Amino acid sequence: MTQVHITGVGMTRFGKHPDSDATDLGAAALLEAIADAGIDARLIESAYVGHVFQGMVMGQRILAQVGLAGLPLVNVENACSSGATAIREASLAIRAGENDVVVAVGTEHLTSQFAGALTPDPSDPEAAIGATMPGIYAMRATRYMADHGMTREQLALIPVKNKANAAQNPLAHFRKAITVEDVLESRAVADPLRLHDCSPVTDGAAAVIMMSDRAAAKYANGRGVKLAASSLRSGSVDVEPTSMTYEPLTWATALDAYEKAGIGPEDVDFAEVHDCFSIAEVLRVEGLGLFEQGSYPRAVERGEANIDGRLPVNPSGGLIGKGHPLGGTGVAQVVELVRQLRGEAGDRQIEGANIGLAHCRGGKAVGIEGAACTVQIVTR
Amino acid sequence: MTQVHITGVGMTRFGKHPDSDATDLGAAALLEAIADAGIDARLIESAYVGHVFQGMVMGQRILAQVGLAGLPLVNVENACSSGATAIREASLAIRAGENDVVVAVGTEHLTSQFAGALTPDPSDPEAAIGATMPGIYAMRATRYMADHGMTREQLALIPVKNKANAAQNPLAHFRKAITVEDVLESRAVADPLRLHDCSPVTDGAAAVIMMSDRAAAKYANGRGVKLAASSLRSGSVDVEPTSMTYEPLTWATALDAYEKAGIGPEDVDFAEVHDCFSIAEVLRVEGLGLFEQGSYPRAVERGEANIDGRLPVNPSGGLIGKGHPLGGTGVAQVVELVRQLRGEAGDRQIEGANIGLAHCRGGKAVGIEGAACTVQIVTR
Repeated sequence: MTQVHITGVGMTRFGKHPDSDATDLGAAALLEAIADAGIDARLIESAYVGHVFQGMVMGQRILAQVGLAGLPLVNVENACSSGATAIREASLAIRAGENDVVVAVGTEHLTSQFAGALTPDPSDPEAAIGATMPGIYAMRATRYMADHGMTREQLALIPVKNKANAAQNPLAHFRKAITVEDVLESRAVADPLRLHDCSPVTDGAAAVIMMSDRAAAKYANGRGVKLAASSLRSGSVDVEPTSMTYEPLTWATALDAYEKAGIGPEDVDFAEVHDCFSIAEVLRVEGLGLFEQGSYPRAVERGEANIDGRLPVNPSGGLIGKGHPLGGTGVAQVVELVRQLRGEAGDRQIEGANIGLAHCRGGKAVGIEGAACTVQIVTR
Repeated sequence: MTQVHITGVGMTRFGKHPDSDATDLGAAALLEAIADAGIDARLIESAYVGHVFQGMVMGQRILAQVGLAGLPLVNVENACSSGATAIREASLAIRAGENDVVVAVGTEHLTSQFAGALTPDPSDPEAAIGATMPGIYAMRATRYMADHGMTREQLALIPVKNKANAAQNPLAHFRKAITVEDVLESRAVADPLRLHDCSPVTDGAAAVIMMSDRAAAKYANGRGVKLAASSLRSGSVDVEPTSMTYEPLTWATALDAYEKAGIGPEDVDFAEVHDCFSIAEVLRVEGLGLFEQGSYPRAVERGEANIDGRLPVNPSGGLIGKGHPLGGTGVAQVVELVRQLRGEAGDRQIEGANIGLAHCRGGKAVGIEGAACTVQIVTR
């Protein structure tokens, strides 16, 4: 069976885009990915488009805008894992022999959908009593502090790191480095989380061109990287979590990805993980087995997760620094992996990286087990 | 590469379900499909759920309700082809070797979303000047009458046929046969279309269990049928149609399916097609190459499309008779093909059928070329 190669990537600036919509952003990212791959757009055989809030036939509009109407096209939704799911489905189309050249796009224009924070559905009884996304992650932070002795200052080092990385990323929503004091003095959102602990409401899109062995041999121009694994699992949205500080869903998904890629967590050189809140980065890297349970805050303090550290985490700036346009996020993570592996990450380049991992996790606020989790492993 | 087998089917009653939601309906259809397949539910390895208007992480709720939370799960949206797209993606997961047992579910609770007809988005400029779904199909009917001499009475024979079939289908929304006079005297919707020419606002869900060769050999119990082709194409929503009475998108999708199945339109024994309006059935069967351009109304008049005719069309009752819960429709079509091929269609059983075809087509009202088209071919 063929391997899956990523041979072109594109991404809009993440941030506020008042003069364009999710179609425009998706089309721009797609056109950039086509140009980056250096291929004739007519080689593309099918497309997968991930988004959450952009309405019916979103992907069809993007294809029409770039002159590719007519292709097989599937819109996929998996909450914050929507874009990552689009990549996974594109990889299955290639592995099934259905197509040789497939594009995955993730897009979201969030600022036109939400004024300020994402508001839960009014029919959601848990949200009505405060179990919103920030509320739940705040509880998880409090529990993690109690269990593992993490200090509020240690937690603040995560937004400090991610916004420092974002300051080196010309496409990031936020371009200004911050200090621990900035985090601690920012507006309270849900105790102990403050504004700088939270990912912002962002517009943006990203796209990747994927190819079979056969197509990559002809068209990759030696610039392709391998999608060694693209794994997906779902979790219940309705049952009680077994733990506030451990993510069995993240681990189950990662385990499948490690097995598919034939590696272990110790082989991962760097990671983009779903830091929707500062505490989420802690829970994710530990759930992925990249750091031991309870050890990550001190590892961050020692600089181990910095771009020049032992295992850089969120070199792009992550959701907190780069921004979080739901559908765009999972695809943009893979764009970052590819740019890092190609040595095209500019001022935030990681030296000597061969294996990158991307992790998304999304769903309703209700139930810590979330709803959709993806892990992708990209190798040189 | 493995073939794809359908080894279990389930479907709720189509109609109004005021006391349940899209999750309940999807879960009921899934449980019935599992029981029909006669398998342990734990054999299911992944799931695809198609819907349009049911919100974020719909599929995850269904899996949680039936105790299958944790599986890889993808929500797909392709307008009225959403359910059919779920089947197509499930078939790719099997062909890719990713999974051996996959379920596809389509569900929609439309009566809780729309009071009466589906209303177009207020921002849609074409809809604002009357280019709604009924308006566009009315124009296509008028054009077809002018081009091919179809009479209003001939057009009425399609709802008469489909509602007669639905009267034999215990799961159909409408169970009462009607006459040509009933059609002509029903309320005007968009001239020349009247109420009986239109598919209703329906709640409902359907599910199919699909297996690889390996799994089918162990678990199909000799009751499996083959999904010989599952094809998908998209069309522009923004460009002018080249013709009001011919559907190049339907033909392009069908051609791909015929090639995959190794058959031609002359080999098809019966079909379920997307009769969202009476005229739509005409355009579809001709676009699929099942009847010659301009010939279908007279063929219906001769009884050729009846259950005992040369090529039965919409034996289930179709969208007009059985109902049209958007996401549920494409999966329910395949349920009907399977039941017919197994000889389990009761009073509406077609004799000696070996090859069935299902066609969906959906998208915005704007642009006759629609947005998503699927053709599936199921064989004994």
